[in-house]
Amino acid sequence: MKSRDILLYSDTAKSADALYFGGVNVPDPFIALSVRGRKFAVVSALEFGRVKRDSDFAAVLPLESWLEKARRAWPRQKPGPARVIALLSRELKAGPFTVPEDFPAGLYKELRDLGLPIRISAGALFPEREIKSPSEAAAIREGNRCSAAGIAAAESVLRTCRVRAGRLIHRGSVLTSERLKVAIEIACIEAGSISDSTIAAGGDQACDPHNRGSGPLRANQLIIVDVFPRVAATGFYGDMTRTFLRGRASDAQRAIVAAVRAAQLAALATIRAGVNGTEVHRRVSETFVARGFETRRTPRGSVGFFHGTGHGVGLEVHEPPRMNATLDYALKKGSVVTVEPGLYYPGVGACRIEDVVQVTGGAPRMLSRYPYAWELR
Amino acid sequence: MKSRDILLYSDTAKSADALYFGGVNVPDPFIALSVRGRKFAVVSALEFGRVKRDSDFAAVLPLESWLEKARRAWPRQKPGPARVIALLSRELKAGPFTVPEDFPAGLYKELRDLGLPIRISAGALFPEREIKSPSEAAAIREGNRCSAAGIAAAESVLRTCRVRAGRLIHRGSVLTSERLKVAIEIACIEAGSISDSTIAAGGDQACDPHNRGSGPLRANQLIIVDVFPRVAATGFYGDMTRTFLRGRASDAQRAIVAAVRAAQLAALATIRAGVNGTEVHRRVSETFVARGFETRRTPRGSVGFFHGTGHGVGLEVHEPPRMNATLDYALKKGSVVTVEPGLYYPGVGACRIEDVVQVTGGAPRMLSRYPYAWELR
Repeated sequence: MKSRDILLYSDTAKSADALYFGGVNVPDPFIALSVRGRKFAVVSALEFGRVKRDSDFAAVLPLESWLEKARRAWPRQKPGPARVIALLSRELKAGPFTVPEDFPAGLYKELRDLGLPIRISAGALFPEREIKSPSEAAAIREGNRCSAAGIAAAESVLRTCRVRAGRLIHRGSVLTSERLKVAIEIACIEAGSISDSTIAAGGDQACDPHNRGSGPLRANQLIIVDVFPRVAATGFYGDMTRTFLRGRASDAQRAIVAAVRAAQLAALATIRAGVNGTEVHRRVSETFVARGFETRRTPRGSVGFFHGTGHGVGLEVHEPPRMNATLDYALKKGSVVTVEPGLYYPGVGACRIEDVVQVTGGAPRMLSRYPYAWELR
Repeated sequence: MKSRDILLYSDTAKSADALYFGGVNVPDPFIALSVRGRKFAVVSALEFGRVKRDSDFAAVLPLESWLEKARRAWPRQKPGPARVIALLSRELKAGPFTVPEDFPAGLYKELRDLGLPIRISAGALFPEREIKSPSEAAAIREGNRCSAAGIAAAESVLRTCRVRAGRLIHRGSVLTSERLKVAIEIACIEAGSISDSTIAAGGDQACDPHNRGSGPLRANQLIIVDVFPRVAATGFYGDMTRTFLRGRASDAQRAIVAAVRAAQLAALATIRAGVNGTEVHRRVSETFVARGFETRRTPRGSVGFFHGTGHGVGLEVHEPPRMNATLDYALKKGSVVTVEPGLYYPGVGACRIEDVVQVTGGAPRMLSRYPYAWELR
């Protein structure tokens, strides 16, 4: 089979495809392409030596020289990536290039205006990214080790703070979401990762699943701690969530937490290669319905269980596949997904429990590990 | 003047335009648009309540309902963002939409195939992002306060470690780039920011300007510390660099550092509204040439001064404008730019000194502050 010629133009922070393709971090947008399976990068002097030494590219070309060539080829035009790509395509007898769906539209149009046929990939450019090799799975496990370090730091703070008139007092002052996130993020850094957008939200704030939390945390409220750090050495993510309560839980809070854990176990018992993601999601929803937990939309937002059961994790924290109510997709052996049911009821509280597993022909392989004790007296 | 109708589709981590437009973090791609100046967002139940409460959008629409409408309108097609946008465009009598250059090509093509005229912005979608208001400048100053906290942590570690046989010993073990970065990143977190991709590179590693550094740091070598954290509360960045040496510098190292600081002062004396960025860059290059520092390309990479003098900083760490050898662009009052000359000579060492200023009609306003002492005995 003739291999497709591929073209990318992004920095590696915004494009996991570009990181996967070249195996090197490049912080500014750069041209990466493959022609008959051979990979090329065009980078500025700022990146040249490092990319040449540390990447998977067979050839690294100096951007400045190619801009100069473009200037000579089109003397009256401003040289830019489109013209460099056009020259390279001619010189390497490449194309037509296939680009990812998130390729920049401006450059896409410029290339077409220059007469280059460009195909946009239908779906993932590298579908093989979904199936994780043993070393990739190990990198995700390492990401979850970092997540667990962050969650452990949060649990330790919650356990050691004092309760005074319903407030949590840590080292003499009121514990806030912000302070708890600092403790989590420091633990992640010490474990070798960066945790951005950490969630440590309590009470009604946690009923918005992506509210990161702000202000004082309180005793007797459910506190969601969701930590998804990127490992510095590999670029792979972990993604784990635990829900804690410092003090004494109400019966309603206990019922929520028990249902979420039961739903997670039901999902874990269902996940295996060949099973449809909608089926896993349905098992979670049924668990909630059987326990009397209703999902509905309100003018101020939804309550109950209103997000997917899980998503792929890898070089992106959210990547294919998805397990939700609508996406008709059978799980594949080697996929890595989160399993993260949750329930959200303003006035009572919210709970989400999230682990990461690799799909196998049998029971899924756990890639995350942290205890499920949650009520901290 | 009739306002353009604008369309965006991205998450706010990848698109600073989307963050600027809506004033809220959304971690998954979402539809954002404006019609006759009125801003709309279409988000899933996962984001709905939070975006409705915390954003600049006049109206927040539930994605699930709009996907359902699309399913009814095109019963035989899979609903997705393109069809939702097409329905919205019809219902709101919108368009033609202008999209940013980095709008996803796949969606661009789908929209055109659905008959929607789409204009791609020539240059920045929001050129006004370049001119920083007083509160935006204050947010960048805060970013640099975080950078300075990181640099101070690095300097403190370098000052307090012991020197043994050319090695730096910190708390009983060899100081590495990795350990220095941990100290920097913890300080940034405690200051209220996340520092990703921190650089702490010594010796020849630092001669690759984007090498982040790895392994043992040594006495008597130049160590570049480049810290560009994002402030958690605002999303704005700081970006500062200092170069340190623990031990005793050689005459060659001293000459490099003195030249870089002199070049920075020459640039700072040149920057003002109306001056071309190429002129600022030329002053830096001339300073180096006058002191005998040569720039040239070698097969393994460039040596001397081979990057731009500065770049804009704001909601992105690299954004317009740029000050370099080729970009013909006059600085504007209110722009915020880095000023970061550097010299890189494998075998001797590398130095970069970076501060951030706001362009005014007179001398630029410093938005960063940290001492320039570098030789730590």
